[in-house]
Amino acid sequence: MAVAERASTPVNGVAVDQLFSTIDAVKETPSIAKFKFRVNNQWATGSQNCSTATAFSGAHQELSHPKPFKLEADEPAILLGKDTAANPVEHLLHALASCVTTSMVYHAAARGIQIDKVESTFEGDLDLRGFLELDPSVRQGYQGIRARFKVSANVPDDQLEEIIRLGTGHSPVYDSLANGVPIAVTAERA
Amino acid sequence: MAVAERASTPVNGVAVDQLFSTIDAVKETPSIAKFKFRVNNQWATGSQNCSTATAFSGAHQELSHPKPFKLEADEPAILLGKDTAANPVEHLLHALASCVTTSMVYHAAARGIQIDKVESTFEGDLDLRGFLELDPSVRQGYQGIRARFKVSANVPDDQLEEIIRLGTGHSPVYDSLANGVPIAVTAERA
Repeated sequence: MAVAERASTPVNGVAVDQLFSTIDAVKETPSIAKFKFRVNNQWATGSQNCSTATAFSGAHQELSHPKPFKLEADEPAILLGKDTAANPVEHLLHALASCVTTSMVYHAAARGIQIDKVESTFEGDLDLRGFLELDPSVRQGYQGIRARFKVSANVPDDQLEEIIRLGTGHSPVYDSLANGVPIAVTAERA
Repeated sequence: MAVAERASTPVNGVAVDQLFSTIDAVKETPSIAKFKFRVNNQWATGSQNCSTATAFSGAHQELSHPKPFKLEADEPAILLGKDTAANPVEHLLHALASCVTTSMVYHAAARGIQIDKVESTFEGDLDLRGFLELDPSVRQGYQGIRARFKVSANVPDDQLEEIIRLGTGHSPVYDSLANGVPIAVTAERA
């Protein structure tokens, strides 16, 4: 039945027919693949500030989320904050974990690999001597990040690593963080 | 009065006396500056997953937030999600914006520079041909990030850029993202 054949049969919760339609559309018009994502951040006091993700552009359109998403940040008491929200370096780990996971799930779906469960733990090492400028040989950022995935999927044991590489090999945040991004910052008076 | 002299006089909401006490303590015992931050991520379905930041270690202690902070991720409809939360690359911009802001505010406080207002907009360029593996010359990650700060502070106009550099020059997320981080990923069966 034509309608049934055209109907979406999601794999891993991903509408693979739409994924392949997107790939075809981008092949035909590569410029629709260009996206711009944005947040606006407002400082409150001390270590407390809040970003809002409202709109983005892509596929030649200006697009909005159904509601603005508010993302809070704070620091724990030992780092002189009020501990009302995750801190920036924890948010960074979330960005990485969520992106590798989604990238893995989408690319597995495109290959017909059914994934039943994904759980991961991300841990990063930070030496505050960098932030505090106490030792020029110590960087400000994470010295290293370790991730441990637990995955349940319909593949042999020896293909489990390949599923993970579907995530790390396609993830925008993984690439950004592993290889670095040019960042340009300008300032004006409020 | 001795007690009054020892009392905290916060600048920009930052307890600068505690900040200097921390610096003194790290100078005496550098190993207390070593921190490990963590998130655990659980995949739900498709583009939906959730990280939890519960505990971290630092200053030779295992420490917990007062409650676990849950950080949701999803994708907008045009990227085949349900648009219930910010997406991973928006979370990455939040991590960067919040970290540069907090770093700026802390280091300005340490120098006695009063900041009244900080607002910023972060925008990143992403070309989905990288994620979709349609052009090997297109990277998966952000091609570039632009940030625009608006700051109100008690400094002359020509020192405004220096305040911004207090942020970018000390921020752990800025350094991580501008210069890259080694990431090690392992997998096991759930």
